[in-house]
Amino acid sequence: MTGEIERLFEAFDAGRSFALARAVSIVENQRPGIDDILGRLHPRLGRARRVGVTGPPGAGKSTITTLLTKAYREAGYTVGIVCVDPTSPFTGGALLGDRVRMESVSLDPDVFIRSMATRGSLGGLAASTREVADVLDGFGFDRIIIETVGVGQSELDVARTADSTLVVLVPESGDSIQTLKAGVMEIADVFVINKSDRPGADRLRNDVELMLGLRKGAGYSNVPAHHGVDLKRIMNPARVAREDAQSNESDTWTPPVLRAVAVKGEGTTEIVDSLDRHFAYLERTGGLRARRRERIVERVVEVAERRMRKRLWEDEKTMQWLNGRVDELESGRVTPYMVADELLSGFGDLVKGDGK
Amino acid sequence: MTGEIERLFEAFDAGRSFALARAVSIVENQRPGIDDILGRLHPRLGRARRVGVTGPPGAGKSTITTLLTKAYREAGYTVGIVCVDPTSPFTGGALLGDRVRMESVSLDPDVFIRSMATRGSLGGLAASTREVADVLDGFGFDRIIIETVGVGQSELDVARTADSTLVVLVPESGDSIQTLKAGVMEIADVFVINKSDRPGADRLRNDVELMLGLRKGAGYSNVPAHHGVDLKRIMNPARVAREDAQSNESDTWTPPVLRAVAVKGEGTTEIVDSLDRHFAYLERTGGLRARRRERIVERVVEVAERRMRKRLWEDEKTMQWLNGRVDELESGRVTPYMVADELLSGFGDLVKGDGK
Repeated sequence: MTGEIERLFEAFDAGRSFALARAVSIVENQRPGIDDILGRLHPRLGRARRVGVTGPPGAGKSTITTLLTKAYREAGYTVGIVCVDPTSPFTGGALLGDRVRMESVSLDPDVFIRSMATRGSLGGLAASTREVADVLDGFGFDRIIIETVGVGQSELDVARTADSTLVVLVPESGDSIQTLKAGVMEIADVFVINKSDRPGADRLRNDVELMLGLRKGAGYSNVPAHHGVDLKRIMNPARVAREDAQSNESDTWTPPVLRAVAVKGEGTTEIVDSLDRHFAYLERTGGLRARRRERIVERVVEVAERRMRKRLWEDEKTMQWLNGRVDELESGRVTPYMVADELLSGFGDLVKGDGK
Repeated sequence: MTGEIERLFEAFDAGRSFALARAVSIVENQRPGIDDILGRLHPRLGRARRVGVTGPPGAGKSTITTLLTKAYREAGYTVGIVCVDPTSPFTGGALLGDRVRMESVSLDPDVFIRSMATRGSLGGLAASTREVADVLDGFGFDRIIIETVGVGQSELDVARTADSTLVVLVPESGDSIQTLKAGVMEIADVFVINKSDRPGADRLRNDVELMLGLRKGAGYSNVPAHHGVDLKRIMNPARVAREDAQSNESDTWTPPVLRAVAVKGEGTTEIVDSLDRHFAYLERTGGLRARRRERIVERVVEVAERRMRKRLWEDEKTMQWLNGRVDELESGRVTPYMVADELLSGFGDLVKGDGK
């Protein structure tokens, strides 16, 4: 196994694309070797800029992603794209068009595209996305675009894994601007009003700017919420540093609200420029470092939880023991709380005893 | 605190609705007292029948829920309703109409309605829904309807917490019947083709029946997927019992595909009858017991994981320690894997040492 991973790494370091695809698959599916790969890539992370692209269905996210990719390629950068699709079980195959649209960039050998589908129920998608982005970062891509195709809370969680997040809206969504949940306004670093040649574009832009103005007093923050873990308690030093930097009143970031007609390529330059300015802002204020430190801590949290759960629920003895308690549980003689406590009181040994 | 919970319980046991609402809020928001409440209610669970109602947006789920509620009330049953709304952050307020529609039953004192919104990212919604349903069960409701309003994987997870699940489809979804993901077919115990006075209803019905026929050979199963935990390994005895019962070839369940025009009240009798027949089937074959045992084990898993995470991430010392490692992590001297392992090697003491 380790020898195999070793050979994979040689090819990976030599920039071979088959090795990249293999490594991404191992990480995405949490197959054996994932810890070796991510552990080894860890010191190399932080070269790439990560851009999130999110928005309601039909807003043109894939088109914007394609435009951004072309612009980055023209500037000489390599681009890795992670498309995340946490779609409804009831509306499966509606996205073929998007994938076809992306074909124009997918043939470029310096562009790597990976689509990730919903996985399980445990909010593992954001974690997996971050890890796949790490592999792309470690491979040496200059730009990583994380596009969320579907709808739902996971969209926000995925977007939070980026350095800068584009929120793409369309005039059709104008009526419901008030219904955009708070989270959307929180994560947006740049707004793009796509299809802005349609009626209602100006009004939508005004509405978004009005909302941005209203929350200006609240200050700018992008705190990744993680599993109910209060990262602020871990991240205090970095956070304080960032807040210090931002106490320079003249250096705050108000998300620009850009107009675009992505199918005609209009607005690309402004989008790229705004992202560059946002990145410069993050670097200048310490926000970039803070975000990256937050990502690292999130990764520790995820790895620790994944291991705990693996050790607990894949242990044959534990399963047998739990199996033997089901009758008592069913009869109401014991409660799930009692059994869980018993289980955990034996868990310390389990964690320590087990090698990996 | 405990005295307060004690008084809450007295009022709860006396059937006071304010106490029910308080208990539900405590459980839904995982506030202190949740363990007392759920632990104490555990022996009372299993009286209520739990019916899940799911389907794509616009299929008429709320109308079906309202009809079911009225039918159950006419039969003399009390009804608790849990509406779960894991909607997109981009399409917030679209569901007011549904809530208004339900007003006809919401004034009935023997009907309790609670709406639950998306919570956090960790797939905690299905667990919370099950726990709120447990409170309703413990309070003495005869029927519990769990309606999922939104879209996404969580819909399926929530539906899995019921004894019987209605999947509501509409002719408009006919074209995309092939795109219904496998999970939808797996969880459906009864299909309802709503708005069946519209064109395409017969075709949709035929399509669904065709799909059901195709998978008949695969046998009928409703295995709750939980967090990647392979429940089959825990649940073996019950499962074997159920499979034995089902080896009686003549006693299998093929989900009926019913027609309804819910806004006109057409089809209610057939839906109620089918649910009764399905419940009788579950009782007869041991499937009901198996489902309820699975729910109990799932609860143990959830409680154990919640506690582990709480102890780990709310421990001041752990946080400080982790805080002190961020610089090394950032510089690449250590990897998140090393830190997670160090963390877990100390976790045994943490679990054992901490009282609660």
